[in-house]
Amino acid sequence: MPTRVPPVDTQTGDAARVRQQQLTKPPGSLGRLEDIACWFAARLGAAVPTAPRCEIFVFAADHGVAMKGVSAFPQAVTREMVANFARGGAAINVLARLEDCRIEVVDVGVASDAPPPSGVHNERVRAGTRDLSTTAAMTADELRAALAVGAKCARMAIERGARLLVAGDMGIANTTAAACLICALTGATPESVIGRGTGVDDAGLKRKRAVVSAALDRVAKAGALAPEAVLAEVGGLEIAAIAGFYLEAARSGVPVLLDGYISTAAALAAVAMEPPAVDWMLASHRSAEQGHRVALDWLKLEPLLDLGMRLGEGTGAVLTLPIVRAALALHAQMATFAEAGVSEG
Amino acid sequence: MPTRVPPVDTQTGDAARVRQQQLTKPPGSLGRLEDIACWFAARLGAAVPTAPRCEIFVFAADHGVAMKGVSAFPQAVTREMVANFARGGAAINVLARLEDCRIEVVDVGVASDAPPPSGVHNERVRAGTRDLSTTAAMTADELRAALAVGAKCARMAIERGARLLVAGDMGIANTTAAACLICALTGATPESVIGRGTGVDDAGLKRKRAVVSAALDRVAKAGALAPEAVLAEVGGLEIAAIAGFYLEAARSGVPVLLDGYISTAAALAAVAMEPPAVDWMLASHRSAEQGHRVALDWLKLEPLLDLGMRLGEGTGAVLTLPIVRAALALHAQMATFAEAGVSEG
Repeated sequence: MPTRVPPVDTQTGDAARVRQQQLTKPPGSLGRLEDIACWFAARLGAAVPTAPRCEIFVFAADHGVAMKGVSAFPQAVTREMVANFARGGAAINVLARLEDCRIEVVDVGVASDAPPPSGVHNERVRAGTRDLSTTAAMTADELRAALAVGAKCARMAIERGARLLVAGDMGIANTTAAACLICALTGATPESVIGRGTGVDDAGLKRKRAVVSAALDRVAKAGALAPEAVLAEVGGLEIAAIAGFYLEAARSGVPVLLDGYISTAAALAAVAMEPPAVDWMLASHRSAEQGHRVALDWLKLEPLLDLGMRLGEGTGAVLTLPIVRAALALHAQMATFAEAGVSEG
Repeated sequence: MPTRVPPVDTQTGDAARVRQQQLTKPPGSLGRLEDIACWFAARLGAAVPTAPRCEIFVFAADHGVAMKGVSAFPQAVTREMVANFARGGAAINVLARLEDCRIEVVDVGVASDAPPPSGVHNERVRAGTRDLSTTAAMTADELRAALAVGAKCARMAIERGARLLVAGDMGIANTTAAACLICALTGATPESVIGRGTGVDDAGLKRKRAVVSAALDRVAKAGALAPEAVLAEVGGLEIAAIAGFYLEAARSGVPVLLDGYISTAAALAAVAMEPPAVDWMLASHRSAEQGHRVALDWLKLEPLLDLGMRLGEGTGAVLTLPIVRAALALHAQMATFAEAGVSEG
């Protein structure tokens, strides 16, 4: 099956690298900022790219496994935080305003009888997944629907001119789903992946380990599963939407800036489905959640920031945007040795 | 001798910490961003501080030791880069524009018969230091003059409202002076400190090691020296100016954001002279230059970024400004659990 993800333009990336050597600084002295500029050159199709317009989509959904007491917060917090996003009071809203990014909030499956608040996209596939420790979190149809929600959002942003996409997550108990997904897709042990999420206590951590083990045993009994089937078994609706969002971006040749643990678990699922999608992914930060490192290592991505954050919502990605903008501004605006009359070494 | 550096306001810092616990996020989930907000609260004297206005001063000077072939670039590059700063073509100019920061360029001792270009402050103490491998780089009077240049610049910025100061450096061969200074002040071995600077080759690195050893032997023979004397013996005019800049900021109760290797060597000298000055210093990034880690460890400062940069000029500090701004915006603008009606864990 031929992949639909386009290759990156390495020739333009090389042209950007040549330019970096001519700028008035010792070669290599801007470190990873030089790599970022060349990375975007190869993906935006210009040796001196302008800063891409960025949009943020926060995907929210609930998890049936929350009933097993794996989170420090009650399930109602997913719905409450969606309302907080809608009113502009959450961390991601503050960062989006600061970086002047459009932000959209998408309810892919919050556990609520009431419709989402005004301003939030109602794309609810179902009111939360089933309990992944005992049964498949989603049916194949539900998975397809959630993937399609993400793809639709990516298309919407790209059609109005976004050339860099950020996905954020909200979903009580979603670090449990992420842990299952990472273990099932990479073969990592639950011990190396499971962390405290939003801050579960020792008893909750024990429950989380038992739940993840039960889910993995259940999946293992089903034999070798395609990545899509793994995502349906132990994923989440918001995780699937983010995977669909990343896949659509990659197929459209638009780069994405990954956020933390949940979004990287979604990236893992997307790359398991379509390996070349990874070429369109830039890792923003390393979360304090230990499983994030496992997922990033598997994707061979090295994040830019490591500030002990573990909030999700897209916050780590948006915090990294100024670094990306700085890298592109330096690349475009610095004088060359010839222009400035500075001697080369 | 009583210190003139005021203590930080830990009570206001504690009030900021209490607020952090009330914001709609799991406690601690913003990682170091929470610490940054509280750090500034304790130094700007407000539990919810507004983002401080920041100014950048780039101090440039030459080093007599450059004649020993310790740099990958000829000495003329210091003067040429000052002209590049004046025209706005250097990396620090691009970042200053992006972050909307006022930038001043100060010639503390460039080796040139001609005056500095228009727009550059002419505060030349002498046209470059003497060769520190054979004699004192500066006299005591020259050191005092260079420290005073930095102090004057800090006062100027503070008087017009700056509440966060950044110093940058330019000076061919200044990583040799920084290495000497760090070894002499901390007792670190030259092997643990000396790196390739702007990219010196193997032969140059060998010369650099020999020069640093010679300088350290020379200083050791003089017996126990006060930090000021060490700075005069093996420092640089721009390094001394930066030390004076940091000391004046600390005495004025204004925080500084350290840059890389050279500015941190200057910070080391400042703290050796007045230990409480360290309380007003925030480390921005970890340079690729190995000695930077030694200096940061001695100061017990943990930088925020680690992007393999080694350019100086203040670039690492200014790149970190958006992180500081984000931390303060999150602290000020996020809704509390009570305001948003979100359940606490």
